[in-house]
Amino acid sequence: MKQKLALDYLETYNIKVAPLWENYFRVKIKESKKIGVYASDLLTRFTKMAVLGKKVRGALMVLGYQIAEGRNMTSIYEASLFIELMHTGLLIHDDIMDNSDFRRGLPSLHKQYYPSHLGKSMAINAGDIAFYLSWEKLMTSDFPKDKLTLAGKIYSEYLLKVIYGQILDISKINVEHESEKVILNMLRYKTAEYTGVFPLLIGAILGGMKDLEKIDKLKKYGVSLGWAFQIQDDILGLYGNEEKTGKPVGSDLKEGKRTLFTYYVLKHGNAKQKEYILSILGNKKISKDDITKAQELLKEVGAYEYVVNLGRSYVKEGKEAIRAITSDKKLQNILRSLIKYIMERTR
Amino acid sequence: MKQKLALDYLETYNIKVAPLWENYFRVKIKESKKIGVYASDLLTRFTKMAVLGKKVRGALMVLGYQIAEGRNMTSIYEASLFIELMHTGLLIHDDIMDNSDFRRGLPSLHKQYYPSHLGKSMAINAGDIAFYLSWEKLMTSDFPKDKLTLAGKIYSEYLLKVIYGQILDISKINVEHESEKVILNMLRYKTAEYTGVFPLLIGAILGGMKDLEKIDKLKKYGVSLGWAFQIQDDILGLYGNEEKTGKPVGSDLKEGKRTLFTYYVLKHGNAKQKEYILSILGNKKISKDDITKAQELLKEVGAYEYVVNLGRSYVKEGKEAIRAITSDKKLQNILRSLIKYIMERTR
Repeated sequence: MKQKLALDYLETYNIKVAPLWENYFRVKIKESKKIGVYASDLLTRFTKMAVLGKKVRGALMVLGYQIAEGRNMTSIYEASLFIELMHTGLLIHDDIMDNSDFRRGLPSLHKQYYPSHLGKSMAINAGDIAFYLSWEKLMTSDFPKDKLTLAGKIYSEYLLKVIYGQILDISKINVEHESEKVILNMLRYKTAEYTGVFPLLIGAILGGMKDLEKIDKLKKYGVSLGWAFQIQDDILGLYGNEEKTGKPVGSDLKEGKRTLFTYYVLKHGNAKQKEYILSILGNKKISKDDITKAQELLKEVGAYEYVVNLGRSYVKEGKEAIRAITSDKKLQNILRSLIKYIMERTR
Repeated sequence: MKQKLALDYLETYNIKVAPLWENYFRVKIKESKKIGVYASDLLTRFTKMAVLGKKVRGALMVLGYQIAEGRNMTSIYEASLFIELMHTGLLIHDDIMDNSDFRRGLPSLHKQYYPSHLGKSMAINAGDIAFYLSWEKLMTSDFPKDKLTLAGKIYSEYLLKVIYGQILDISKINVEHESEKVILNMLRYKTAEYTGVFPLLIGAILGGMKDLEKIDKLKKYGVSLGWAFQIQDDILGLYGNEEKTGKPVGSDLKEGKRTLFTYYVLKHGNAKQKEYILSILGNKKISKDDITKAQELLKEVGAYEYVVNLGRSYVKEGKEAIRAITSDKKLQNILRSLIKYIMERTR
């Protein structure tokens, strides 16, 4: 029942922004038709992908705004499109780097063209367009200019962190020789701060939050929420119910995705355990039995316990920050419900 | 002699910004070291490439500022780094799409890594970082917030045009079936507006230019300058002196680069001429004789005359706009000298 508040909040957000998206893309696609059919075709493909997101980040931005006691709800809903534009752009670039075949139930953007090089080029352009559309959306939104300028600075700061995290990720750093801090930093930059802190903070800044103590607590909550999001993603990727998650159990292993689980084994496992994990990581031919064996091994080594405990400690930390963020009981309850939902969701 | 004013202006700009670049990257690389050696390594490679540019766009931004009677020279020099950051980012992404081996005398960024997929991924990230560093540089520069917000809108608008132009370019549109307008639009978006109008306009906006008539004339001059730049680039690529341009004559043909010359032949040549041009376009094995034959063919068909005349008419149009842009004789002379230099340069 406690998750209901969170689910309602996310659903209401999605309902509110649906017509805004429709209108936004109608105008943009019309504009791009003046340039030529190639531009409008790419933008149409981008649109189809952008609107399919869960839009958690946009909802968090609105929540940050409400926490800061912002009153211009029409404008914050409109401005929140910026964050999904940017996110979709990042995913499109990520999919090229990770060589992913699917995204949000569609072929990845770079797989929608033939030959392969044209697809990658189009997807690079689509991501670049998304970044600029996103900037434009934020900077032309209906908020005082000093707030927009500050929001713009935060935008650059957090996006740089995401991309730095991505660099660490694709560099396939040798985890055995890296400190736990470097590994956690990578995941923190790539997902936790960006998913949790960034949207809440941008919303709060546009809503006029200035109290540094509050901002600090909001960041603390956001990091915890972001970690919970990442950790539950990793858990579902390995132990989730296929029918609910919509992707085969173990697909993270097959795709060679490096999660907290694999990092833990490579860091703390014995030689044989490490060898086994390395042999199935990124191996598209592994069987169901291999995956079951990996699931068991991860529990044996203590990786599962480590990840679950890490998640729990973040949820605890996040909850502790809530009272200092807002005195509004309703918003406090939504914040509590959200972090619980994010950590317990089954899909 | 008339080119001297332009050359001096560009050189002075380069001398002024050299220490600013040094300081900027020292701070940024130091920051990135906190993230990890992979991030700072990429940023170091990016830096090496960024500082090697001719920096024409940065100089034009300062000129636009002076035309608008801006007085804060320290801040405009500092802010002008933004445009070279962005430009380098675009070039890095372009080089992936065009599969270029070299840039500014260095291996293209994506060729600096092994294997190829890692290189492309790193270069995608480097470009993305550049876009956000560029935004950050502009938005944190020392100008009133309303001017920065307006500059930010213009930034998005022009960058979108560049990327749309790039989409048209990589789509390898079938020129025989496209109107001249579509082709000219592509080149206009991809180069002319971005190289000529965008930097002058951003500078003028930051300098406080508000007179719409003046802005209109500045844009007219900028488009002409941008076209002159593009046209002379194309001419040098085909008929230039190798020792001065630093690249082999005909390399545009070998790389399959589609210029005004090739568009003209494909649009107006007879079947045999088209066939010949298509047979050498993008063919890395063509000989010196093939290139000589192509040079002659382009003159025969009238492509050379067309391109040179187009360049001349743009220079004329650009010059006519100058008086309405500024009454300052010194700046008028620099504007005149610049467009002349851009069109007559031998490298």
